[in-house]
Amino acid sequence: MTEKIRRFLDERRPATPCLVVDLDVIEDNYSNLHRLLPAAKIFYAVKANPMPDVVARLNALGSSFDTASRGEIELVLDQGADPANVSFGNTIKKETDIATAYALGVRLFAFDSEAELEKLARSAPGSRVFCRVLVECEGAEWPLSRKFGCTPQMAADLMVKAREKGLDPYGISFHVGSQQTDLGQWDKAVGGVASLFSILRERDVELRMINLGGGFPAKYRADVPPLEAYAAAVMDAIYNHFGNAIPDIIIEPGRSMAGDAGILQTEVVLISKKDEAEDKRWIYLDVGKFSGLAETMDEAIKYRLRTPHDGGATAPVILAGPTCDSADILYEKASYELPVDLKIGDKIEILATGAYTTSYSSVNFNGFAPLNTICI
Amino acid sequence: MTEKIRRFLDERRPATPCLVVDLDVIEDNYSNLHRLLPAAKIFYAVKANPMPDVVARLNALGSSFDTASRGEIELVLDQGADPANVSFGNTIKKETDIATAYALGVRLFAFDSEAELEKLARSAPGSRVFCRVLVECEGAEWPLSRKFGCTPQMAADLMVKAREKGLDPYGISFHVGSQQTDLGQWDKAVGGVASLFSILRERDVELRMINLGGGFPAKYRADVPPLEAYAAAVMDAIYNHFGNAIPDIIIEPGRSMAGDAGILQTEVVLISKKDEAEDKRWIYLDVGKFSGLAETMDEAIKYRLRTPHDGGATAPVILAGPTCDSADILYEKASYELPVDLKIGDKIEILATGAYTTSYSSVNFNGFAPLNTICI
Repeated sequence: MTEKIRRFLDERRPATPCLVVDLDVIEDNYSNLHRLLPAAKIFYAVKANPMPDVVARLNALGSSFDTASRGEIELVLDQGADPANVSFGNTIKKETDIATAYALGVRLFAFDSEAELEKLARSAPGSRVFCRVLVECEGAEWPLSRKFGCTPQMAADLMVKAREKGLDPYGISFHVGSQQTDLGQWDKAVGGVASLFSILRERDVELRMINLGGGFPAKYRADVPPLEAYAAAVMDAIYNHFGNAIPDIIIEPGRSMAGDAGILQTEVVLISKKDEAEDKRWIYLDVGKFSGLAETMDEAIKYRLRTPHDGGATAPVILAGPTCDSADILYEKASYELPVDLKIGDKIEILATGAYTTSYSSVNFNGFAPLNTICI
Repeated sequence: MTEKIRRFLDERRPATPCLVVDLDVIEDNYSNLHRLLPAAKIFYAVKANPMPDVVARLNALGSSFDTASRGEIELVLDQGADPANVSFGNTIKKETDIATAYALGVRLFAFDSEAELEKLARSAPGSRVFCRVLVECEGAEWPLSRKFGCTPQMAADLMVKAREKGLDPYGISFHVGSQQTDLGQWDKAVGGVASLFSILRERDVELRMINLGGGFPAKYRADVPPLEAYAAAVMDAIYNHFGNAIPDIIIEPGRSMAGDAGILQTEVVLISKKDEAEDKRWIYLDVGKFSGLAETMDEAIKYRLRTPHDGGATAPVILAGPTCDSADILYEKASYELPVDLKIGDKIEILATGAYTTSYSSVNFNGFAPLNTICI
């Protein structure tokens, strides 16, 4: 909680639920990351928080942008981004959207399959392309499925094909899983990419870029290593596997850039028990899974909470959202405790909610408006 | 797929993804249910599909409305509903929203806790109230948690308190789980409610209403009993436990009213494999978990699909949405097969998507627009 957000909440008293994002925190996060990883080019993962003010601030700082759709490309260009600094990082793209991106000046594209490569060859001729490879990603709180990436062997074949089709086989990307806390995962993944560089060199394809994806964490309930440790782990892995021949490095931070910049203020709507004999209170908030807290799915992301009664005695609670959907429970198994003095009408602050919240809000599920978000 | 929707899709060729809802199907569903359960008053669960046209059509047919929020109450009143036919069915309500509903003329409210009862006594004096009780709900495809309802014993105490506080202790509600396919669940639940009627009669509280909630299914991939069987099971249970002293009956259908009225047309964006040696294709659509298909969470609701190549040879697939979110996978474990001839750009129709789809869409996750929905 920054002083600026504190003051805003105290003075403006916005209707809840409300997410307040401090742009200065995002600026600090960008500057820190840039300082710690000067060799890397930062492509902000717009999907983490696509508020125009966030994009504009990062653009002013010199950030590049990792985009997931035509909509996000148009958004960042509207905020003044140079298309030369935009990556169309989704491996799943309609060919019409590729053509639109190309027409807008975007020349950097992700892919992980032959069919996508063919679309790119047709509709983004000559562009730089990078292939996403599958990596094991143990240790991530929001682990990745096999949805993105192909095996390294397939990636090698596809990069050769990329050159044959007139594209520029620029590099390899991977993602160790969002909110990755096991630093050893980086070395393993970078090692795999370095092998691909060697294999492709033998096939006369000279890769020049490694895209480390995202994965740097925000601070939720559990402790995470400091950003310094991440940066060191990443650079150690690169020196270890590439020696002095350091390729271009791209990173795509989202959560670590915007997460701790946001505070979500919510109100306690109801406190109840299912039975007089039960010890656990149910605490119902005016925000839930369908109005911004989608990442509580399977209780994956465990946010920190602040209440007006912190410091007093606590007792176990189940936390739930306000909709009539019985799946709209935030934490039932995650052993949350809240002050016994908590009462209906109290404001609770949910910390580090600047990433992957607002844009997940449903349009109007149960008649509730999307999460109101204010950048200050 | 109705002729009307078929013609609309063929002639208008709307951009995908697009949900088309046939209002005549909703009208048929309402009329059928009304014919099969003439003793019951139908409160359409607005949350299932809150399109104004859907509400307007049902209002013209004489339906009442079960609402989850102030937003939904304003929506149905805007469509001409009489507030006397509106229930504020969410047990989690801000007191300011209760007061607004009361000022708008709503006089029927749900609750399941003492704190909520106190809010109602203060801000909706004299209103009819019903208490939701917890029931076991085996057999539902979208099972309910313990989020709503209290134990029958607590419900009895609260109904006595309701009268003491000047409210009208009208009845008891329960919910057997959405998409409930085990008809025996109704008898068990109705029996529990009948016991509560007896217990409260001894405490001089004369309940007059049983609210059966929703739970009638739509037809997805698995077969479901016909609506006739549901209606018979429900009425048998009521005669069995209430004899000739039939109380007012309320039902709150949502899925069974709107589900099969909608067809979602989507486009195949990409077909790929992760490795040449793999047999399963990944099929990526232009709609996913965050743009309308939220109920594929944990692969709970298994929609039927129609493709232009139906009838030909099929092979196993994994179905996924278009976002960069690795959780945006529709079916990986549910053993879907699709034609081997399927190709990028083909249109696929996802059937029975009229309920619990559009309103779940995220506002702009990954820069994708909410699901475009057209009522015809």
